[in-house]
Amino acid sequence: MSKEHIIFGIYPVLEAVKSGITIDKVFIQKGLRNTTLDTILNDLEQKNVTINHVPIEKLDKLTRSNHQGVVAFSSPITFHSLEDIVETALSNDKAPLFLILDQISDVRNFGAIIRTAECTHVDAIIIQKKGGAPVSGDTVKTSAGAIFKVPICKVDHIKDAIFYLQGSGVKVVAATEKTPNSIYDVDLNNPIAIIMGSEGKGVSKSVLNLADEKASLPLLGEINSLNVSVACGAFLYEVVRQRQN
Amino acid sequence: MSKEHIIFGIYPVLEAVKSGITIDKVFIQKGLRNTTLDTILNDLEQKNVTINHVPIEKLDKLTRSNHQGVVAFSSPITFHSLEDIVETALSNDKAPLFLILDQISDVRNFGAIIRTAECTHVDAIIIQKKGGAPVSGDTVKTSAGAIFKVPICKVDHIKDAIFYLQGSGVKVVAATEKTPNSIYDVDLNNPIAIIMGSEGKGVSKSVLNLADEKASLPLLGEINSLNVSVACGAFLYEVVRQRQN
Repeated sequence: MSKEHIIFGIYPVLEAVKSGITIDKVFIQKGLRNTTLDTILNDLEQKNVTINHVPIEKLDKLTRSNHQGVVAFSSPITFHSLEDIVETALSNDKAPLFLILDQISDVRNFGAIIRTAECTHVDAIIIQKKGGAPVSGDTVKTSAGAIFKVPICKVDHIKDAIFYLQGSGVKVVAATEKTPNSIYDVDLNNPIAIIMGSEGKGVSKSVLNLADEKASLPLLGEINSLNVSVACGAFLYEVVRQRQN
Repeated sequence: MSKEHIIFGIYPVLEAVKSGITIDKVFIQKGLRNTTLDTILNDLEQKNVTINHVPIEKLDKLTRSNHQGVVAFSSPITFHSLEDIVETALSNDKAPLFLILDQISDVRNFGAIIRTAECTHVDAIIIQKKGGAPVSGDTVKTSAGAIFKVPICKVDHIKDAIFYLQGSGVKVVAATEKTPNSIYDVDLNNPIAIIMGSEGKGVSKSVLNLADEKASLPLLGEINSLNVSVACGAFLYEVVRQRQN
């Protein structure tokens, strides 16, 4: 992450929050208590900012200056609310298409996925507050700027987003190799959200259980391991293909 | 590239070549002349090894030891001859599927593409001697081992490979956004070779002119820029989809 996106020290972070700039993530020194800090944390919690309590050594590595136990990372983009995005998408002529990322941790994969989402007219990418790749200067770079074109929603828990989408009439399809159901046999013409899982573990079990449908790509070799951004591209382009006909 | 794949010094390289191990690439100090060296170079030329003449500073950076003006990189795999591969593929029941990479330079993209090729039953990947990402330890890693499963052919020029494939009854389809022809309108059931171009420039013009058909993926946004391994995956999976029906 580039230096210019780091804000450190209690008052600088407080001022940054007050100024309305979007904070992606905050690292707080473990065990640190302070009235001003509590105020900041309260504000950040409400804004869905990821807060991590970390050892002081981690903060020392991030900045040589006096961080006072607080380091914040500004976000190059403003996050959207899922409710607003779903409302807008449902009012469009085209059937909505959402992409849910369950803990994609590699910034290059994240960037490539955002590029694909932009090219396939995804209405929004939904990520979870914790566990995924940060939305940083590197994400801007690896997404080739596409991150400024596709709305990103950051939610507390993927599960809540799934319930909300289902309640709005969106079918949730999980990409997983643990099903005989091929994506090519799934009708993708109606409102759809596709869930892609992490590089190592795929879609987590608890999330998988909530999906309306599971779908796989045929794997004709022995390795059975596609790069997640490649798999995501094959899924999204199948939606494009079905909808253009 | 990991250290263990570097061989340096005139006699060590000569012995490596004699022993029959596959050399991927050799760096020779610019202007260096030497009878033994000429013998090695002759041998390597015939084996389709990439030879680069470089300033001595580049060699000094690669190894601190006395390289005597010669540094070779061993290949983790043995390359296949295009003729053998085409003959084998044509004798199979399934319609052959080849993938031609025109100067893919990023090792992560190269690795992700090899993984996809393995999962989509590509008969062989065809790369050019010069200009592409090396076949190295990093390629093994980024391909998740798939490089040991998919035959790789290294050719002098992509053009010669195209002529050879066309002469064998294989239709050559170039992936390019510079055509209104969608991949979804191309019949991919017959013997096919797909050409993917470099990250920056796409398929080079001279190669594009030789293709039997040009095909694009629909680009529904404004960025018009997919990651090449993602685009390659969407093309190869469209072949899989059409052929399973």
